[in-house]
Amino acid sequence: MNVGFIGLGSMGGLMARNLLKAGFSVVVHNRTREKERPLVELGATSSETPASLGAEADIVITMVSDTKDVEQVLFGANGLATGLRPGSLVVDMSTISALETQRFAEKLLELEVGIIDAPVSGGTEGAKSAKLTIFVGGSKDDFNRALPVLERLGSTITHFGPIGSGQTAKAVNQIIIASTFLGVAEGIALAKSAGLDPNMAIDAISKGLASSWILENRGPRMIDGSYPLGFKLALHRKDLRIALEQAASLALNLPGAQLVATLEDSLMEDFGDQDMSSIYESVRPKEDS
Amino acid sequence: MNVGFIGLGSMGGLMARNLLKAGFSVVVHNRTREKERPLVELGATSSETPASLGAEADIVITMVSDTKDVEQVLFGANGLATGLRPGSLVVDMSTISALETQRFAEKLLELEVGIIDAPVSGGTEGAKSAKLTIFVGGSKDDFNRALPVLERLGSTITHFGPIGSGQTAKAVNQIIIASTFLGVAEGIALAKSAGLDPNMAIDAISKGLASSWILENRGPRMIDGSYPLGFKLALHRKDLRIALEQAASLALNLPGAQLVATLEDSLMEDFGDQDMSSIYESVRPKEDS
Repeated sequence: MNVGFIGLGSMGGLMARNLLKAGFSVVVHNRTREKERPLVELGATSSETPASLGAEADIVITMVSDTKDVEQVLFGANGLATGLRPGSLVVDMSTISALETQRFAEKLLELEVGIIDAPVSGGTEGAKSAKLTIFVGGSKDDFNRALPVLERLGSTITHFGPIGSGQTAKAVNQIIIASTFLGVAEGIALAKSAGLDPNMAIDAISKGLASSWILENRGPRMIDGSYPLGFKLALHRKDLRIALEQAASLALNLPGAQLVATLEDSLMEDFGDQDMSSIYESVRPKEDS
Repeated sequence: MNVGFIGLGSMGGLMARNLLKAGFSVVVHNRTREKERPLVELGATSSETPASLGAEADIVITMVSDTKDVEQVLFGANGLATGLRPGSLVVDMSTISALETQRFAEKLLELEVGIIDAPVSGGTEGAKSAKLTIFVGGSKDDFNRALPVLERLGSTITHFGPIGSGQTAKAVNQIIIASTFLGVAEGIALAKSAGLDPNMAIDAISKGLASSWILENRGPRMIDGSYPLGFKLALHRKDLRIALEQAASLALNLPGAQLVATLEDSLMEDFGDQDMSSIYESVRPKEDS
């Protein structure tokens, strides 16, 4: 099976590498073409455009930034839609709008091309170790076709239901982590401000009700004021916009996520490219430097 | 060793029971006297007032609702302070103000009575199974004297530093759970509102970045709209007031905790006596009934 891979950013590059390691024949394309080179050195072939890549592949993974980027890759000039053969399958692993995903699926259906949405959680650590959590929406048949590929990228793969439901699950995930990150940041800010040993506090608190992956793994970074990736603040802000747009379309008010969006906006300039644990900077005590 | 126990509420009653089971000689007192009876039936003796109890005990645990209640038990009419012998030790396991705790300690010092603060996390489940997380502040000697008793009540016991630091650690814990609860509630609200299976979402999400004790153990209660205790919303609101007062005294702004306090205020009348997972009611989608 020929697997196409479009979007070799900080996540996609690591994921394409895992497919090569697993023995798949992989053809890659990236808007900034020089990002293809490390993959080609590992055995991938490269392709000029999404259209030419589509003509060579049975399954094409797209891993790009936002809804408009997926639209461009699919339906733009030299887009996948002009190259894909009937019966081929698009696996969109980007985090984008669930509603727009449904619209893309309708347009691809006219070309007899399948699509599933399969956004991920787990950041660059999960991408590297092939232990991503993958949220899938689409038909059962398309899910089963993609599964041998997805299994080389993630360790928890859940088929939620029809097209778009993977994106909804991802939005739920991003909403939950938003306030969880803020709670951990505020707790650490209070500990530091009050002169409590914050590492001791994390150790004690991690045994009880307040325990979370974020407290144990990102709390120490907040204490150090150092935010290596991880998962970019700017990307979480983008995901939060998508999730909040979906909530708004359902007349649902999510004040915690709204608050985090506002706090992240204030950090974008200085910390947008750092890990989202930098949300700590928005509540950092003045005397803590 | 004679252990006194004052405050036989939903937490204290279970904790006193564990001390009896462990073979301690326990003398109990409660403002509403009839709550003493089940403990007496299990082998405790009862005492008329905090003062008379204090005269009989080497170590006295106080487990009452708020700062003013601890003050009343210690320094009110027939308070502990009038009965305690020099060399005895108060172990205040209530969640109260760290600052007031320091003031109480100074007054007890004049009577040659020791005090440590030892608030807990883990709710009635933790109290029952003697697996509470206990946050301790006070002198090392006093901590060591109390340890044989504390070890029968909790499984994670951390000595943070001087008097009041246990309360600060507890405040950190309550700040962290505030926004974590809200994040989980908002995620589940979005899942339900968008027609996603929320149990499937929790299962998938619990494997990744968003995993927390609250998501796994309280998410299902939010989905059911049923909030058995656990930990009362009203008590968390009280703890949050104490934590936010401490933050304000340090000129620290904690917008997530502030938001949760506001949301909890709106729920106090209908859900104050239910588990704090009822925070879900403040973001519940209109069509979810």
